[in-house]
Amino acid sequence: MLKRTYPSFRTVLGRHDVVRVAGAHHALSGVLAQEAGFQAVWSSSFEVSAARCLPDASILTMTEFLDAASNLQKALDIPVVVDCDTGYGGNYNVAHMVHEFEAAGITAVCMEDKTFPKLNSFADGRQALLPTTAFAGKIRTAKAVQSTEDFYVIARTEALIAGMGMDEAVSRCQAYADAGADAVLVHSKKPTKDEIVAFLDRWDGRVPVVIVPTTYPDWHIDEVREGGVSVVIYANHGMRATLTTLRKTYRAIYEAGDTMALEPEIASVRDIFDLQRMADWQKLDA
Amino acid sequence: MLKRTYPSFRTVLGRHDVVRVAGAHHALSGVLAQEAGFQAVWSSSFEVSAARCLPDASILTMTEFLDAASNLQKALDIPVVVDCDTGYGGNYNVAHMVHEFEAAGITAVCMEDKTFPKLNSFADGRQALLPTTAFAGKIRTAKAVQSTEDFYVIARTEALIAGMGMDEAVSRCQAYADAGADAVLVHSKKPTKDEIVAFLDRWDGRVPVVIVPTTYPDWHIDEVREGGVSVVIYANHGMRATLTTLRKTYRAIYEAGDTMALEPEIASVRDIFDLQRMADWQKLDA
Amino acid sequence: MLKRTYPSFRTVLGRHDVVRVAGAHHALSGVLAQEAGFQAVWSSSFEVSAARCLPDASILTMTEFLDAASNLQKALDIPVVVDCDTGYGGNYNVAHMVHEFEAAGITAVCMEDKTFPKLNSFADGRQALLPTTAFAGKIRTAKAVQSTEDFYVIARTEALIAGMGMDEAVSRCQAYADAGADAVLVHSKKPTKDEIVAFLDRWDGRVPVVIVPTTYPDWHIDEVREGGVSVVIYANHGMRATLTTLRKTYRAIYEAGDTMALEPEIASVRDIFDLQRMADWQKLDA
Amino acid sequence: MLKRTYPSFRTVLGRHDVVRVAGAHHALSGVLAQEAGFQAVWSSSFEVSAARCLPDASILTMTEFLDAASNLQKALDIPVVVDCDTGYGGNYNVAHMVHEFEAAGITAVCMEDKTFPKLNSFADGRQALLPTTAFAGKIRTAKAVQSTEDFYVIARTEALIAGMGMDEAVSRCQAYADAGADAVLVHSKKPTKDEIVAFLDRWDGRVPVVIVPTTYPDWHIDEVREGGVSVVIYANHGMRATLTTLRKTYRAIYEAGDTMALEPEIASVRDIFDLQRMADWQKLDA
Repeated sequence: MLKRTYPSFRTVLGRHDVVRVAGAHHALSGVLAQEAGFQAVWSSSFEVSAARCLPDASILTMTEFLDAASNLQKALDIPVVVDCDTGYGGNYNVAHMVHEFEAAGITAVCMEDKTFPKLNSFADGRQALLPTTAFAGKIRTAKAVQSTEDFYVIARTEALIAGMGMDEAVSRCQAYADAGADAVLVHSKKPTKDEIVAFLDRWDGRVPVVIVPTTYPDWHIDEVREGGVSVVIYANHGMRATLTTLRKTYRAIYEAGDTMALEPEIASVRDIFDLQRMADWQKLDA
Repeated sequence: MLKRTYPSFRTVLGRHDVVRVAGAHHALSGVLAQEAGFQAVWSSSFEVSAARCLPDASILTMTEFLDAASNLQKALDIPVVVDCDTGYGGNYNVAHMVHEFEAAGITAVCMEDKTFPKLNSFADGRQALLPTTAFAGKIRTAKAVQSTEDFYVIARTEALIAGMGMDEAVSRCQAYADAGADAVLVHSKKPTKDEIVAFLDRWDGRVPVVIVPTTYPDWHIDEVREGGVSVVIYANHGMRATLTTLRKTYRAIYEAGDTMALEPEIASVRDIFDLQRMADWQKLDA
Repeated sequence: MLKRTYPSFRTVLGRHDVVRVAGAHHALSGVLAQEAGFQAVWSSSFEVSAARCLPDASILTMTEFLDAASNLQKALDIPVVVDCDTGYGGNYNVAHMVHEFEAAGITAVCMEDKTFPKLNSFADGRQALLPTTAFAGKIRTAKAVQSTEDFYVIARTEALIAGMGMDEAVSRCQAYADAGADAVLVHSKKPTKDEIVAFLDRWDGRVPVVIVPTTYPDWHIDEVREGGVSVVIYANHGMRATLTTLRKTYRAIYEAGDTMALEPEIASVRDIFDLQRMADWQKLDA
Repeated sequence: MLKRTYPSFRTVLGRHDVVRVAGAHHALSGVLAQEAGFQAVWSSSFEVSAARCLPDASILTMTEFLDAASNLQKALDIPVVVDCDTGYGGNYNVAHMVHEFEAAGITAVCMEDKTFPKLNSFADGRQALLPTTAFAGKIRTAKAVQSTEDFYVIARTEALIAGMGMDEAVSRCQAYADAGADAVLVHSKKPTKDEIVAFLDRWDGRVPVVIVPTTYPDWHIDEVREGGVSVVIYANHGMRATLTTLRKTYRAIYEAGDTMALEPEIASVRDIFDLQRMADWQKLDA
């Protein structure tokens, strides 16, 4: 009872043709994603920053992102994939990051090729990239210092976000795979999936491909699978739904002056007890 | 720009005949409560524990509750009132708690007269109370070690929750006020407000009264005010709404296989940028 | 390079007839204990509290003791044994403690049978013990929720400290072993080893015995081994030496008005670089 | 009793012609520096990193440096000056740093003009500096977002460390002062004080000067004062003495096989109780 074990992300990848991953920012959201059927959870730096009302711009520290990821993982039976932004600096930071995340039981991280400090991909402004060799060096560093065989490193290119074109995106991903990346993530903020589909057409399959369909919400999982994608991350919908609901809920209480009308629409305290597994805990004192 | 100042809870109390307070568990929820009009935010140990999928039973540590409260306060222009459960142990823990919360800029805390470790008031099982003199000693300790005049300590009695009757509730609150408590919180889990109304009839007003109308949701703010209550805490509705929404959102994505239908119902990424005050931050690089 | 692996405490126990353990409060002290030859390090709650200038009295939280232990373990090739005081409260706290320490890669913890909050064994005042069955229940809880086979739980009795006599010490240790404890620690503050020797004479060896010879400093390791002790913890000497040295060092600087006389007595900046393994890190940028 | 108040660093500067500051890495070291007579304590990133056995190279995060500084400040009656390295990244990081350190009650920070991630000034390898205008921008950002009048920002130039010459050092310090820096720190690793003396000859005094005499240990405080220096930081001697002592202590225990010979040389457990103010705490339960 209350034991905690979970497969590594690498193990989960071996069991599914496409792994569906949901963004989360706390254990409660992660547990609900798991309940819905997702095979892994994305510890999203956008969501974790938003929970603090701070921009997704390398403002929170690795310590805070590690805490968030580790608290997620401790509540789950499925693995967490951690959005590690740029790796928090240079090669030393990347090495330290791998040490720290492995020590906390995390089995997969993702690093992107933007310069530190990064800015969220959907924000206007600086989206400059490291030279390919410099970022490949960071991937090589990460793979060189990992202590377990299983640890999984995803290399994310922001070449399309930065407007550097498809050739650059493809050649960067090849270089990252050659440097040891276990998978590549190619990100696009175009309103359709076309850019990603074009990438997939060009990709030689040397490592799996990960996508994040935020701006192309109509790409159905069956097509994603058929397109050759191995991992799909629904990165921020939980937080966006939370914002809508909390705004409405607080306003409703303040404007009504009581919570009567709200009661039928929201979970009960008992529902929360169930998620907390209160009954299992109470057995400890039996 | 981006400066951070906020009035103490004591100051806010002086400005309103009844202070309305909303429960929160992260800065984003606190900011939305502030936006809705609330005058203060309750850093709820139930919500903070639920965010970690752990029971509200003194499992998380003072460090974790302090982090949650401090991160809330740093995002707000209104004061945070912290649910400090039992004060985290005995007199030493209470003294240390006051040092730590004051050092983090918190201006109000609430302690309850249950034994450590506590169990949530709505859960079945142990709800034993400390002897009155022992808890009065904890209140005295808290007041003796505070470094600022403004720091505000609310003494919460669980006498009605523990089924010890109205006389006990009243005499405990009197003893706590005499020990230096700045206010008393009287909690009830009856399905109507009657028990609290009976308490108010008996209360001699030596310090203000705080209530938490979770199980009597129909008590309108105008009646609460007329009843002589000074502070009302809507303690957990944000988290309960969050559970409902996240469950629905993750299921919808998993079952539909894409996020198309969800898009119109949830906030946009830009809405989140606005809450993060992205535009203000971007001026720093201008 | 810079990979991090270490054997479990259980593995180390299997390799030595007596395991010598040194108290530490930060990675630097742990690394120097390892360098001296110790087979394990004791993450001492006395030392960790002293580093914060706070009494060893359950004032710091589990989060803070976990951070200290985890930061020690991450710097070492030998296992850390964590001084977990009372287990931080009741059964729920013990279960959560095991989850958290295992998740952080800790392989051995020690819990004592005093009531929460505890006071350091050498301080005057309350040293009350839990009933035997209640503490045995905490041991059973710890063993029931551990996720790995290797995790090692030491039950420490304070019966001799509390003046309850040898019969009580022995029967408590038997009960704790029967509840699943992997070893027992028997603590004494007598100025000689006699009380511990008497305990060893009575002990039936159902699990190994751990000792902490703070007040009987003349008990030589060869005699300890011959006496049938399996683990000896030199719990606080590093911190005591640190206090003496720092007091002298700061005074010397302030009184002399420069640091000239001090230079030959203290390590160089390069010596610290060596402990930090600076050369290994610099290869990451080569 | 046990109340906690301390003057701001700005206030302390107004009371002394030269402020003597000692490096520390935990509350115990800070308290001993205070006891020796120092007027402030330097929360040294070199010492804090060394305590973790990690290079002083922007590996630990702002969260960890903030915890260290805040735990120091909470134990002291004198102010802490925090070594904030580069400000942990760009302008956003600097703004966030000021928010966080002010919220924790810190009254003075120091930032240096190296690029992020930095490397310790005494280590071989990259010591590249930001352009003057970029670092002046970081100073301007820090001063623009501070919430209290008192908050004190020291701008540190590494121009001499980086071999860029005296003209560069002087013009950078002038630019930083013009950007709002409350003081300048000029660092040198030459084996004599000559470089710093030459700087002081050139300095027009628009803001106070801070020095760190690590490699010129013979510069007496009377000469430092007469030279026109306002603040002198003995940055790392406590940690260097600690390394020497701990190495010796652990070896002595391991080699002797008991701690008998050590006892007269090291502080007693009671000495540590005194530093922890155990007697004051015990009054809380009286």
